[in-house]
Amino acid sequence: MISISFKPGGESGQVEEGTTILAAAEQLGVTISAPCGGRGRCGRCRVIALKGCAPPTQAENDLLTGEELRNSVRLACEATLVEDAQVILPSDSRTVKGKILADDAREEITLNPNVSGSAIELAHPSLADQRSDFERVADGLGVPANELVIHRDALAQLPTVLRANDFHVGVVRVGGVISAIRPPGEQPCCLGAAVDIGTTTVVAYLVDLRSGETIATASELNPQARHGHDLISRIEFVQSAATGLEDMRRLIVDLINRLLAEAAADAGVMRRDVHEVSVVGNTCMHHLFLGLDPRNLAQAPYIPVTREPVELSAEEAGLAINRAGNVYCLPVIAGFVGADTVGVLLMSRIAERDHPTLAIDIGTNGEVMLWANGRLLTASCAAGPAFEGGEIRHGVRAADGAIERVWLKNGSLGYATIGGTRPSGICGSGIFDIVAALLDSGAADSTGRFATHEAAQGLTEEMTTRLRGEGPQREFVLVEGGGAGNGEITFTQKDLREVQLAKGAVRAAVELLCAEAGIAGDEIEEVLLAGAFGNYIDRRSALRMGLLPPVPLDRIRGIGNAAGAGALAALLSVDERERAAQLSRSAEHLELMANPHFQLVFADSMMFPEAT
Amino acid sequence: MISISFKPGGESGQVEEGTTILAAAEQLGVTISAPCGGRGRCGRCRVIALKGCAPPTQAENDLLTGEELRNSVRLACEATLVEDAQVILPSDSRTVKGKILADDAREEITLNPNVSGSAIELAHPSLADQRSDFERVADGLGVPANELVIHRDALAQLPTVLRANDFHVGVVRVGGVISAIRPPGEQPCCLGAAVDIGTTTVVAYLVDLRSGETIATASELNPQARHGHDLISRIEFVQSAATGLEDMRRLIVDLINRLLAEAAADAGVMRRDVHEVSVVGNTCMHHLFLGLDPRNLAQAPYIPVTREPVELSAEEAGLAINRAGNVYCLPVIAGFVGADTVGVLLMSRIAERDHPTLAIDIGTNGEVMLWANGRLLTASCAAGPAFEGGEIRHGVRAADGAIERVWLKNGSLGYATIGGTRPSGICGSGIFDIVAALLDSGAADSTGRFATHEAAQGLTEEMTTRLRGEGPQREFVLVEGGGAGNGEITFTQKDLREVQLAKGAVRAAVELLCAEAGIAGDEIEEVLLAGAFGNYIDRRSALRMGLLPPVPLDRIRGIGNAAGAGALAALLSVDERERAAQLSRSAEHLELMANPHFQLVFADSMMFPEAT
Repeated sequence: MISISFKPGGESGQVEEGTTILAAAEQLGVTISAPCGGRGRCGRCRVIALKGCAPPTQAENDLLTGEELRNSVRLACEATLVEDAQVILPSDSRTVKGKILADDAREEITLNPNVSGSAIELAHPSLADQRSDFERVADGLGVPANELVIHRDALAQLPTVLRANDFHVGVVRVGGVISAIRPPGEQPCCLGAAVDIGTTTVVAYLVDLRSGETIATASELNPQARHGHDLISRIEFVQSAATGLEDMRRLIVDLINRLLAEAAADAGVMRRDVHEVSVVGNTCMHHLFLGLDPRNLAQAPYIPVTREPVELSAEEAGLAINRAGNVYCLPVIAGFVGADTVGVLLMSRIAERDHPTLAIDIGTNGEVMLWANGRLLTASCAAGPAFEGGEIRHGVRAADGAIERVWLKNGSLGYATIGGTRPSGICGSGIFDIVAALLDSGAADSTGRFATHEAAQGLTEEMTTRLRGEGPQREFVLVEGGGAGNGEITFTQKDLREVQLAKGAVRAAVELLCAEAGIAGDEIEEVLLAGAFGNYIDRRSALRMGLLPPVPLDRIRGIGNAAGAGALAALLSVDERERAAQLSRSAEHLELMANPHFQLVFADSMMFPEAT
Repeated sequence: MISISFKPGGESGQVEEGTTILAAAEQLGVTISAPCGGRGRCGRCRVIALKGCAPPTQAENDLLTGEELRNSVRLACEATLVEDAQVILPSDSRTVKGKILADDAREEITLNPNVSGSAIELAHPSLADQRSDFERVADGLGVPANELVIHRDALAQLPTVLRANDFHVGVVRVGGVISAIRPPGEQPCCLGAAVDIGTTTVVAYLVDLRSGETIATASELNPQARHGHDLISRIEFVQSAATGLEDMRRLIVDLINRLLAEAAADAGVMRRDVHEVSVVGNTCMHHLFLGLDPRNLAQAPYIPVTREPVELSAEEAGLAINRAGNVYCLPVIAGFVGADTVGVLLMSRIAERDHPTLAIDIGTNGEVMLWANGRLLTASCAAGPAFEGGEIRHGVRAADGAIERVWLKNGSLGYATIGGTRPSGICGSGIFDIVAALLDSGAADSTGRFATHEAAQGLTEEMTTRLRGEGPQREFVLVEGGGAGNGEITFTQKDLREVQLAKGAVRAAVELLCAEAGIAGDEIEEVLLAGAFGNYIDRRSALRMGLLPPVPLDRIRGIGNAAGAGALAALLSVDERERAAQLSRSAEHLELMANPHFQLVFADSMMFPEAT
């Protein structure tokens, strides 16, 4: 056996000789994102292993730069362990470490949680007052005993806690049901957690429900990613094995339990004082968390098992909080329009506006929402991973070294990286900017084709130089490499086509929703961009590439991580739950695939706007 | 290791050499009643072991007759195993095998169960009809989806069962919550079970809730008896060990699961089709089943944890029925007035009468109920085990060979045994008759003293002969033994005192309730006798010994096993649950120990009525 430990988390353990770093990480519960499923193809599972591994494989020699190889960078799925090893994981992505966008939105919520606590002082029983312990508590709370519900665990605590504390106790209620009887205090500790299950990242917010304050936050990559980066791969995994669904459910439930444990430890509180968890996620994440078969989401007519809000006991959900605790899952809208979208609708207060408003949330899957003429319309579109750097030659997730901004100044190209470090690749917001720069400079035309040698002669000298290769191999050199091309970063014709497909899908959805609502695209008066996407991309670049209909720049705004904010809102107020249920019920979902005009509109939407 | 098997159940297994038969039975899950806790004192754990045991111990030689010893009768707690053995258990008591009294009462119940099933046929989904599976079902049931609750398990079954059955399925609902989605049939199978947890015997009735028919019944001795025959011993056991409460809970829950499995097998049905269980028991049994600490029931001021009806999930209760099933526990009234008493109040319809009515349920503990002047009063009294043959020299449980009837005819004594077999002892109804005969013949006076030698001269010659011994050792020979006194059955002065204490306790409760209600004892117009007690004792004997106030014989009637009937009623109709809750709420409990007149009334009540 070989000892292996991971930095910065400190996880360590013993594994068999010959195990890959990726497999060792899985055994020790450490998540390393491997989009290609650990097949040595995508080159994304980069880690640093100073010693302990067999020499680099062919795949590593192909996918890693010479400098990386010299600096002990390895692919976790390829590098096998031959002796004791210490592995350093790259710093977490910006999405995880970045500011918790949800916090912004919370100010609007009036605290009215489903969990409440009260302290009561009761008369001692006597032969003249033989009320049961439970009736005594009910009377203390001023609720008729026959209308008060108590969980069996709390009932079992009752006689002991009452007598150990001289009949002066704290009572915790969840949705009116007594979930715990506690020793006295000013007010019993009432904690809740909001969980945002993203396809890529899972975030848990631990909240003191007396104050509404988030007292700790924990996040990790979604470990289901080991069975595929995108939803379809995960659904296929569920179908591939008898225990697939349960395996997927356990992965996410175990992770949430780890996050809650971590957050509770950080805040110095007990998990048994957590009485409710609210959960938000796209429809597939929602189904997998609840152990509902997601296979019908992936095939026409894309039917979810349920769209209503789901409530179940912590025990049924498998969450290690107070056993009498409650789990509330926000409603979903359609097979590919989930509770995360409900979060956007909820937090944006979109349906309270008096003008046509568009909201867009783009991850691997894109969701487009339109409020117009008293109707709330939603659609999903397969944007693909291009906007997150996926399927892009030098695309990377938003982490230190990623090129996040690109600009043209006096015909000359500039760029900036996250953290100001040496560029490692291009992340989503950088991709938007590059495309805008290519279009503005004339290096690419409105059909999405790079300027030919001839046409490139009309460009600035710098831009001409940066274009190289022919036809499909043509590419734009963003960062020149050192010797032997090491460290070079390019944007290829294929990359541009990927972006074009993605933006076409989103724009087609926008156009079809507008048609359904009976408005023209330019009648939209406001555009809301959700999530990291909305927060980091340059609005001008988005307009330039035609992702959005023409709207004044100042009517486009980011609304932050509305999914996580939605989960927090539902945790903090039952009024917000009611609002979310109303929104999911009133939303009309348009299935774009069923629209006879889809192909035509999609083809039109792929075009970039002409230079003006 | 030694092989041991038990008849008639057929349980068998391996145990260590030197194990007692009682310990071996416990290891194999076989219940043998051992009232003294297996200490070789009460002599009640008689079994037959033809071979395999060490020679009889001193305790066995003392407690078993010569004939019993010759016939291989052994005390299970004393006999140790030395080689492979086969042990024969005595036939079950009459209480278990006797007719199920509860069946009588059911005719009054209008079927309105908490569990219902319906068959629905739904439209297939399409791109034009993307309702979720759950909404489709809600629409099929005609219930708004946001008002319909579904258990997670049923939700998880939904997509598969719908598609495997062409969207034509059966839906089972428990209290409005969908608990299962089934393949189509005329109506889905909806089963329920009513469980009567007696201190001595546990009975489970398996019911088809579509018809209300009991389709199978199973019963067994309560295995908690291994930790003591009476409630106080069991409560002491709970307090004696950290796991005492959980041990007791598991014993009863496991037994109920065995009974349900047995009943389901008998009826040829699946346990997963059982969607609800209703439970009735005295307050201690109720607490132990729910895992609630019963210690405060046993000490003043005798406070139960709760008196309200308790509902919990099958999973929480530990019952192996459908996981989404519900468990309903009838309410209790006080520490020693339990759900069994509520069953009596419910099934007797006592509070609907227009005249003062008394109801009595006597086991080891006695419950007395009085309906008079618009008040429903209850009290409990420590009757002790004498009325069931406990603490009586030759007392036995009601089984084959027990003397169940005794009479005087022309000054001569006659008796009859259950099954007409050779007498083995005296059971409860026989004890009532003996006391009446002793009083009628003058062999005992109203103070409960046997006639002295002098006084006995005034009796018939037969009765004179049957009285022997002096003072506290004086006794009445009921059955003459063979050589060496073997097979002799006597009724001793101490036995008579035990009966006197028991009847005094019950009568005192009656008198104190009457006083509270402002009526005299002879204003009671009707007396209802519950349980086996009410069914088997001779009403004239009960009147003769002064257990009851003077009431015309024809105004006394047995109402059968009202506890079991109450559980069945609650299972068959939610209206009966509401009625039970009302009764338990309106009942006023009198704590006799707190009554300053108790001692005086008790002393008076111990007297037997003078001969008339």
